[in-house]
This record gives sequence, structure tokens and C-alpha cells, in this order.
Amino acid sequence: MILEVADIRIKPGQQTEFEIAVQTALTTVFKKAKGFRNHNFHHCIESPERYVLQLTWDTLEDHTVEFRGSPLFTEWRSMVGNFFAQPPHVEHFELVSTSETKLGVA
Amino acid sequence: MILEVADIRIKPGQQTEFEIAVQTALTTVFKKAKGFRNHNFHHCIESPERYVLQLTWDTLEDHTVEFRGSPLFTEWRSMVGNFFAQPPHVEHFELVSTSETKLGVA
Repeated sequence: MILEVADIRIKPGQQTEFEIAVQTALTTVFKKAKGFRNHNFHHCIESPERYVLQLTWDTLEDHTVEFRGSPLFTEWRSMVGNFFAQPPHVEHFELVSTSETKLGVA
Repeated sequence: MILEVADIRIKPGQQTEFEIAVQTALTTVFKKAKGFRNHNFHHCIESPERYVLQLTWDTLEDHTVEFRGSPLFTEWRSMVGNFFAQPPHVEHFELVSTSETKLGVA
């Protein structure tokens, strides 16, 4: 399992519309993607145009090859691309350690 | 509950020692910190000197005021500061949404 971390900066004042677009994409586009497991989506306190979207995938290639090479990627970008102030910074991570059993609302 | 995201770049070739230092700090320093809940710690695949350390706190001030103003912060930095290639980029986040019930090793 690998973690995709997308560091996103949107244009000012579009937070509500962007969050709705991401939510819609998560429940339509990503749920169809091979190897997609789950997500968490966070909004930055200090930089209100910044979001971090974290997606877990079974393998690196499920994201970088399968998803990015599929029509789902085009669909995702058509839903959210206009909100981006710059291309998102995306890299992939392996877990070193966690103390979490649940990540969610307290 | 808020999420602290520390984006860390270390000096080359010190991954093993850095991971041990962080693990030690998590189980000694952070476990004593007021409002500290849990962590996850990830290593970047594309940029091997990059780590993302995510810590959840009860409140923003538990991290920014209480922890950073305490001797625990000095202790933490004394354990890991020498590994940093540059000051970590740290910001705080609120959860927009999650589909996770468990975050961990598959």
C-alpha cells in the first residue's frame, strides 16, 4: 500500500466550490479506479488556499500508470483543474510508522 | 482535533539514523506532550531525503503554544535538528473529509 500526497493551491475564494468538486470526484471518479483504497482531505489553517489530499493505493503503478493513463484521470482533472492556482505537487510515500488506529473526526 | 503536517528534508544518507531518532522522540518526547494524540510518519519514494510527519493534536495551541514553548520542543529538536537539510515546513490542517477507518499497514 502506498500513499499519494497531493499538495494543492487553489485560486482565492473558491474553497466551497473546490471542496464540493473534490467530494464529488471521490465518490464518482476515484471509487471506480483500480487499486484505490481510501482518502483523507485536509484544509490548511495558515494558508487558506492550500489543501492536502492523501489517497492510498494498492501499488504505486495503480496511481501512476493505471489511473493517470485512464479516462478517469481526464475526468478528475476536468472537475478540479480550473481551481488550481498552479499544478499540484504530487509524490508518493511508504509508511514508516503510525500510532493511529482511526483517523477521523474526534 | 487538528493535523500538523511537517514536510522534512534531511541530509543525504541519514535515513536510518533519522528514522530511529524520530521513533525514539515519538515514544519519549511526544507521548508526554499535552494534547498530543497520535502520529503517522511517511518516507517519500521519489525524493528519498523527504519525509512527511503528521501529528494530531487536540487543539492548534497544544502544538503552537504549549509544545513549542515547553522544554519538550527543545528536546525534540536536539534529537532531530542535525538531520535537517533545511528548516521543516510546518502548517496545520482541519479535516474536510475522510473515508478511512484504519490507517496502517495493509
